[in-house]
Amino acid sequence: MAKNMEEVVNHVKHRGFVFQGSEIYGGLANTWDYGPLGVELKKNLKDAWWKKFVQESPYNVGLDASILMNPKTWEASGHLGNFNDPMMDCKECKARHRADKLIENYFESKGEEIVVDGLPFEEMQKMIEENDIECTECGAKNFTDIRQFNLMFKTYQGVTEDSTDEIYLRPETAQGIFVNFKNVQRSMRKKLPFGIGQIGKSFRNEITPGNFIFRTREFEQMEMEFFCKPGTEKEWHQYWLDFCHNWLLSLGLSEENVRRRDHTDDELSHYSNATTDLEYHFPFGWGELWGVASRTDYDLTQHAEHSGEDFQYIDQENNNERYIPYVIEPALGVDRLVLSFLSDAYEEEELEDGSKRTVMHFHPAVAPFKAAVFPLSKKLSDEAKEVYQELAKDFMIDYDESGSIGKRYRRHDEIGTPYCITFDFDSRDDQQVTVRNRDTMEQTRMSISELKDFLSEKVSY
Amino acid sequence: MAKNMEEVVNHVKHRGFVFQGSEIYGGLANTWDYGPLGVELKKNLKDAWWKKFVQESPYNVGLDASILMNPKTWEASGHLGNFNDPMMDCKECKARHRADKLIENYFESKGEEIVVDGLPFEEMQKMIEENDIECTECGAKNFTDIRQFNLMFKTYQGVTEDSTDEIYLRPETAQGIFVNFKNVQRSMRKKLPFGIGQIGKSFRNEITPGNFIFRTREFEQMEMEFFCKPGTEKEWHQYWLDFCHNWLLSLGLSEENVRRRDHTDDELSHYSNATTDLEYHFPFGWGELWGVASRTDYDLTQHAEHSGEDFQYIDQENNNERYIPYVIEPALGVDRLVLSFLSDAYEEEELEDGSKRTVMHFHPAVAPFKAAVFPLSKKLSDEAKEVYQELAKDFMIDYDESGSIGKRYRRHDEIGTPYCITFDFDSRDDQQVTVRNRDTMEQTRMSISELKDFLSEKVSY
Repeated sequence: MAKNMEEVVNHVKHRGFVFQGSEIYGGLANTWDYGPLGVELKKNLKDAWWKKFVQESPYNVGLDASILMNPKTWEASGHLGNFNDPMMDCKECKARHRADKLIENYFESKGEEIVVDGLPFEEMQKMIEENDIECTECGAKNFTDIRQFNLMFKTYQGVTEDSTDEIYLRPETAQGIFVNFKNVQRSMRKKLPFGIGQIGKSFRNEITPGNFIFRTREFEQMEMEFFCKPGTEKEWHQYWLDFCHNWLLSLGLSEENVRRRDHTDDELSHYSNATTDLEYHFPFGWGELWGVASRTDYDLTQHAEHSGEDFQYIDQENNNERYIPYVIEPALGVDRLVLSFLSDAYEEEELEDGSKRTVMHFHPAVAPFKAAVFPLSKKLSDEAKEVYQELAKDFMIDYDESGSIGKRYRRHDEIGTPYCITFDFDSRDDQQVTVRNRDTMEQTRMSISELKDFLSEKVSY
Repeated sequence: MAKNMEEVVNHVKHRGFVFQGSEIYGGLANTWDYGPLGVELKKNLKDAWWKKFVQESPYNVGLDASILMNPKTWEASGHLGNFNDPMMDCKECKARHRADKLIENYFESKGEEIVVDGLPFEEMQKMIEENDIECTECGAKNFTDIRQFNLMFKTYQGVTEDSTDEIYLRPETAQGIFVNFKNVQRSMRKKLPFGIGQIGKSFRNEITPGNFIFRTREFEQMEMEFFCKPGTEKEWHQYWLDFCHNWLLSLGLSEENVRRRDHTDDELSHYSNATTDLEYHFPFGWGELWGVASRTDYDLTQHAEHSGEDFQYIDQENNNERYIPYVIEPALGVDRLVLSFLSDAYEEEELEDGSKRTVMHFHPAVAPFKAAVFPLSKKLSDEAKEVYQELAKDFMIDYDESGSIGKRYRRHDEIGTPYCITFDFDSRDDQQVTVRNRDTMEQTRMSISELKDFLSEKVSY
């Protein structure tokens, strides 16, 4: 069922998942703050990624490199030279546009899907003129020429603002991994194939960010660079593509909302010999969630050339053969992953009695609260709090004693708490509580001493 | 026992805890990357903080605000006006100095301890002249006047580099909490007292960063703002000070290396009515680890004035009394916390037979690997790997099959793995393995099926 983006966004803002950044000061364009529930959801997704991609993986290790890097990194990676958007202003109303997006949106509105990204500027300019494309703000057809606009945020480290102190906020976490390839391989005595995973913030000064937390200038990434022997990269590309896809489904994302899309030859970066996106069906349409790219030896070769370091791997198991490893990179944006889980989970449900409830159907592993503990009456607060405190040692648990039990159920449906545990007057004697299931709304009686194992099993994935 | 900073740093660089940032490009001053072991240590410390300060706390909730904030935030907080270092250049050799540090170091070298921080510039200038203080680089006594130098990193969001697009990287996570006070309180229906905890990166363009990861320009913070009724703040200040101190000790930090230091009246910020630092005895001396400050209603009042928002709390339990909450702030730097655990754990131990070993005595809860699994012979790899894979579902575990068992023990002593598990030929039949304790070096025989519970108990805190 298609969901309404505005409804989802309103709900998650209202219920403490995501707030507008700097809201009391009128916001700061396109920044968002994760509230108490959003931060738990995001943390659960990051922990789940780390568990499967680092902890449980016999191949991989983790890393946490700085956001601030030596600018030579961005020369080698090509970000200083090529990481640009085609930018254009309307001379009448001064609105700023990304030329490629303006053209694509124009054709989309006529029912045609075209990809403009990567075309030379002259061709884009020609397309705009020939199709009489107008400024979406004021309707004029009077644009400046298209210019390059570098997407890296620039700042100055040290005390003088001159070019020697110019540095950039990293536009991706990947390069922090490549420059540390030798350090990691040596200190951890790793043999190929092996991967290095990293979670961290990146920054891109996008001209047209948007769609809530789908595309933001400040964003978090979970990237892995998997190093393997040349010739084995197709196999590993398939392996990690399947692995990523399964990971999403194992955490409860709907199968029908996830699809694979191979990059066409036109789209492929010149150094990539295969790239497949895992796309998610967001309320605003299909969008890239996870790019799984086979990047050959491009990155390590670039850094070898620019740094003078030798990035060759000596393959002791194959007659000391020397080669620069090939790389598979599954790159995932945390914020858009959160958005996919938020919109996937959201439902306005009509009940049998005609009433409505809003439910977030999160998998227990990603739900902000795993359970909520209610005393049936405030007279039972002390005992119910004991149950809460004991469970809170192992899980994020809420304690709620205000309003009717029915109202408390609805509140926790709205934030996706999978289990509500009610401590009533009988509980004092029989040490049993009522456990109510968020999705089925069924209630079962369970011993307090069983709760921990019950929840442990439910949150595992 | 006093430890040698250089030894500790060399060890942790060599063994994959911390690498120089952008090392292949000659580094970038004062940036550090956490390697595979460092990232686990740091993650364990962050998770332990979140567990005790957010998950288990009946008072607190979490938050994750953006690094980029509306600049009005920094007007209100005072960072735009007052967040400056007194900077001064040597006219001869062009070296740049922090005037206060230059004076303090001069007096320290003469055995006097003085605090210059906060004095007017003229007084500092007078002290330098009267004491004939020289440039530490070239020995000249020819300085420029002292100037203000703002410590915030500046960048531009959007496409033009003019003042309307000027923004800053946050110099502390605290303000992201204050501006969201109402959003959190409303959406989570919180009643006073309650706290909001946050973990995230901050940036300060320090003139004199240093001491490895103790003071870095890019750093991570774990801050909590605890909101309470005016008049109760002294009590809560004591409560959180004890709580923080206990947290450090519960994770194994040596009692004798942690002390409390109350700020003197001269040191106290004008709005604070009590601040106590938890200091750690680093190899280079005592240094601030955790500042626990009673900040009154200063921050919320500032934001109320600058934003026009009403930050009053309506106390329904006290006749709807209205007041701006008072705040206790325990602020901890993650990187220096990591450094304290690294240097606390490090030991060059002389054994009974006269040989030496290097050991990292981490509490199992913070150790990067909880255990390592070894096959006694490569013939046992398959079975040992099964043990590894099963444990890896719940813990960070290493698998190691190269070199003698003795060598593997030493390698894991050096990185602080508390338990080494050896699968030998008997293990096939009796399903028992040898578990060797890092600190006592004692070996005990244990059933494979008991390992999970054994480790679970050891890593709990």
